[in-house]
Parts: sequence; structure tokens; C-alpha cells
Amino acid sequence: MFIRFITTGGTIDKIYFDDLSQYEVGESQVQQILHEGLAEFDYDVVPLLHKDSLEMTDEDRKLLHDYIADDDGDRYVITHGTDTMVETANVLMDVAGKTMVLTGALTPARFRTTDAVFNVGMAVATAQVAPPGVYIAMSGQVFPAGRVTKNRAENRFESTDRN
Amino acid sequence: MFIRFITTGGTIDKIYFDDLSQYEVGESQVQQILHEGLAEFDYDVVPLLHKDSLEMTDEDRKLLHDYIADDDGDRYVITHGTDTMVETANVLMDVAGKTMVLTGALTPARFRTTDAVFNVGMAVATAQVAPPGVYIAMSGQVFPAGRVTKNRAENRFESTDRN
Amino acid sequence: MFIRFITTGGTIDKIYFDDLSQYEVGESQVQQILHEGLAEFDYDVVPLLHKDSLEMTDEDRKLLHDYIADDDGDRYVITHGTDTMVETANVLMDVAGKTMVLTGALTPARFRTTDAVFNVGMAVATAQVAPPGVYIAMSGQVFPAGRVTKNRAENRFESTDRN
Amino acid sequence: MFIRFITTGGTIDKIYFDDLSQYEVGESQVQQILHEGLAEFDYDVVPLLHKDSLEMTDEDRKLLHDYIADDDGDRYVITHGTDTMVETANVLMDVAGKTMVLTGALTPARFRTTDAVFNVGMAVATAQVAPPGVYIAMSGQVFPAGRVTKNRAENRFESTDRN
Repeated sequence: MFIRFITTGGTIDKIYFDDLSQYEVGESQVQQILHEGLAEFDYDVVPLLHKDSLEMTDEDRKLLHDYIADDDGDRYVITHGTDTMVETANVLMDVAGKTMVLTGALTPARFRTTDAVFNVGMAVATAQVAPPGVYIAMSGQVFPAGRVTKNRAENRFESTDRN
Repeated sequence: MFIRFITTGGTIDKIYFDDLSQYEVGESQVQQILHEGLAEFDYDVVPLLHKDSLEMTDEDRKLLHDYIADDDGDRYVITHGTDTMVETANVLMDVAGKTMVLTGALTPARFRTTDAVFNVGMAVATAQVAPPGVYIAMSGQVFPAGRVTKNRAENRFESTDRN
Repeated sequence: MFIRFITTGGTIDKIYFDDLSQYEVGESQVQQILHEGLAEFDYDVVPLLHKDSLEMTDEDRKLLHDYIADDDGDRYVITHGTDTMVETANVLMDVAGKTMVLTGALTPARFRTTDAVFNVGMAVATAQVAPPGVYIAMSGQVFPAGRVTKNRAENRFESTDRN
Repeated sequence: MFIRFITTGGTIDKIYFDDLSQYEVGESQVQQILHEGLAEFDYDVVPLLHKDSLEMTDEDRKLLHDYIADDDGDRYVITHGTDTMVETANVLMDVAGKTMVLTGALTPARFRTTDAVFNVGMAVATAQVAPPGVYIAMSGQVFPAGRVTKNRAENRFESTDRN
């Protein structure tokens, strides 16, 4: 079982900048999370973009789309800023035969209290278990692309299905 | 979407006892993990047993089996000690029509560095996404019951499938 | 024994802002740290300023100076940004009869890995044990004001004493 | 400035044992704490004993006493179980000319929420700032030896001074 992680930026990998003594932590948070989760499967991490999701353009989404469409993998976890995660998920929906799971965090992974570890855990399981398609793993839930929205006022992801 | 969590003890909920000033932290670690994971779905937590998994008896397993078989839920996450998690998973395999995911931790959830958060994240996603059946979510992987073993020397779960 | 904590901003209390879903955590990090440190003494926390220390003006320093000079306390811990902590310490040196300890952090207290807890622990002990005067508690050391500098290239505080 | 750390066991360094897959974390928690506190001074760590403090004998205390009395250092931080920390402090009171600070933790340093980091921060500052003598740094306070007791019912250290 092999999962390819693609990082695109967003809150999960937020880097803190001090005014003078700026520093940047290089190590991918995804690797740190997998290490702490004692994950024992084959994976690699592709740092494709490094943007807040509000700054992500149509071209960025096409880059991600084409990267996955042309790649030889079957399972993808894509870390992404939360504000436009839904839009990016929609763009990926025409890639056939692959399980693609977008996740991220409402609080940076470097914080002491963060949803990042739980979310990556959800995404990793979904990439293994779910049939091909695009999913968003956030707010403790796995949503199919096209049926999910971010409720910004409540700062959570919600299903758009009628109950 | 509703998930019933059943806690049975094990390392994930390990309580630390000092010699004199013994204390016990009452709050379930599962609830703490869901809270930090910003999980927004309906759930409850049933504390069924509180045992190291090496001490778990056939009667204990029957209790768990019958509890789930007689219950009206569809999705279960069962936290369990790791040493006999595989045996308990096997006992649950004849319960039809329900998705049951066993998980736990190799390091207590109260530790600063722990696999518990990642594992519960995996289990929660699996309970939502996987077809009915019994699964073990450990070591970064989701294993179907009956095809997984704990490699004690390496302290990890492994598939018994031939590659 | 009573310690008055005065917060002025800086990295230790750094608040993270997301682009859209901005949030601010209100609770003072000092209180959180004292709570986790199981501190059992009387104190209060005065939020006097909320600035990066590079933006701190002479007027801000005079405000802090006069607040302490006019106050009826004996022991102070002042949390402060690191870049101009030395300058603020110098300004306080003419306040007589009080023990004043400046501390802060090179990494925000909300981070999982941070020097904030250790530093506040040092400052609290120094406020109790040291004779009246101004001190900086950083980099694992307690420096008297006037004999300490921040080495920005190395991101640490150092004594200016000749060895 | 040089501090010698002497570890004797106790809750701060508590090691967790699983039933089957027992593991022991070798690295001293003191070093981990100093590293995270970004401490920049010379020190070494002497692992003298490894006992719960209830099991500490008069001989153990004599060993510690003689080690320090015969050693060429000036400043000591001694990590120690909390239940008999007061007794050990009393035994050290006849060592002249050295600053000796006992500290420990009510919750293991490996826990996510622990007083260990704060306490070691206090002890390190006290070892630098306090005049020669024996101190206990616990419960957010620095107590002189001979004037402190552990209130076991309340799980905290208290001064025995009349107010």
C-alpha cells in the first residue's frame, strides 16, 4: 500500500515569522504527524505549492489536477488551506480511478492543540478504504466532493445534503 | 451520522498511579481526542470494560460481541489494548451489517508524544467510509479482521496477506 | 507571597491569524502556564500593552516604568518581546526596592515545542529569590539588567561580562 | 556558570511499562526539558539513583549527601520524587557553600500536561540566583529546606512558616 502526500500550504503547515529573528521550520508537518502516528506504510511527500488557500489560482488548481492525472499513483492525501479546499476538491472530480483525500487544519500542526493530527489520520484511512473519488476529511467527517461546504461563521465543514 | 464509541481499557486510556498521591483522570481520552480534532458529528461513548487486553477473557469478548449485536447502532469505534486486539476483532466478525473499527495506542493518549490521536482519526474515518465488517486501525493502516497480526518484537501491526 | 505579572505582548503571546477565519485566543498564556505548573501562590495578571517589542516606543517604556514605580507590589514578572527586552530592562533600573524580572519566548507559548514554560518558571523563581533589581530570564539563564544582550544571529541572550 | 543536575528517580522521570511490549525511554527528561527551554549554559547530568522517593533509604540519602559534599561543583539541581523530597532536603542542609535545589513533578514529564518543565525552570533559576543553601522548587514556589512540607491531601508543597 502506497500513499502519495501532496502539500499545497494552508494553515496546517503555517510557519511562524518573528519580526527580526525570522525562522522557518523546514520539515513537513505531514511527515512529523505520520512519524508520531507510528505509521508503517510506504509513502512519499511531494511539496507542490506553498500558499494560503485564498491565494490559490485556477492555474494552481490545474497544476495539482494535472500532476495527479499524469501520476502513476492510486491514493493521494492532499494537505490544503481550508478556505478554498472545497473548490479544489471540485476541480479534481474528473480524475478517474484514484482515491484523493483533501485535508488540512483549522489550527497549525505546530500548535500544542491542533486538529491536524486527527485530520491526517482520517485522510490516511480514507485513502486506503474509500472507493476512487475525491473526499474532504475535516471536522471529524469524511465528505464526498461536491456535497460539502465550509461554514466560515462556525469555522467547520458541513454536508450540503438535505437531511 | 452517528458513531458509538466503546472503550474497553488498554494503553490508550492508561492511567498513571503514583505511589501515595494516586490520582485518576476521569475524562475519557476518546472525548478529549474528538474535542481536539474539532469533530462535529453525533456520538456517544460507552465505557464497557476497563482492562489491559492481556487480562481480557472470553466472557469479556462475549459481552462486547453481544452488546454490539443487540445494539441499534451501525458504526462503532472500539478502543482496546493492543496485545489481544486481533483476537477480539475475530470474535466480532459474525456480527452482520455493522461497521466496527478497533483501535488503541502503543503509547498512552496522555503522553506528549502518542499515536492515539492519529489512530482514533483513522478509526473515525473508517467507521464512516468502510463497508460493514470488522477492521483494525493501527500502525497507520486499516486492516480487515482476520488478516492482521501484531508483531510484538517490532511493536506494530502487520498484514498477514501474502504479497 | 504575591507576584504581579505584567504582559506587554511579544512572541510568547503571539496570536495566530488566519486570512478569513481570524481568531484570537483571549486567555493569557501566563495564566495557562502557571496553571499547568501547578503554581500555588497569589498573583494577578495586568495586560498593559500588546505589542511586538520592535514597535515598543519610549512612551510605552515610560508607561511600564511608571506603572511599576507607582504600584504597591514588590515582585514583578514582565512578559515582553525579545528584540528590545534589554532596552526595557535598562529603563526599569532606576525603580528601587522591587524585584522585576523580564521574560518572554523565542517560540510562541501556544506551540507544541516552546521555551515559554521554562522561561516563566525561571522568572517566577527569580522574582521570589533574587534581591531587588531588574533581571532578564532567558536562554536558561538569569541575567542582571545592564549586563546582557540579545545575540540575534544566534537567537539567544548572552552575558556582556568579560569572562 | 555551571550547574550539575543529579537525577534520583521519582514521578518526573516515570517510565511507562506496558504488559508485554515493555519499553523504556532512555533519554533523561532533564536534558529534554533544558533542550526545549533553549538553555545555553554549561551543565552535566549525573544519574545517581532511580527510585520512587518512598523507597529511598537513609543510605541513599547519605550517598547523595556525600556525592555533593565531595564534588567540586557550586550549583546543583536534584530531581527527586515528591513524597520524601522534604526529608532529603533536610539531610543536605549541612553541606556548606553550595546552592542545592530539589525539584520534581506531580505529573510525569512525558505527559502532555505536566508541571515538570515549569519546575525545572524554577530550579535552574534558583540554582543561579539563590545564596548557598538547600531549596525545594515546587508548586510555583521556592521554599528553603526545613520550612516546607508536602500536603499530600492537597497534592502540593506548602510553607511551614506561620503567616
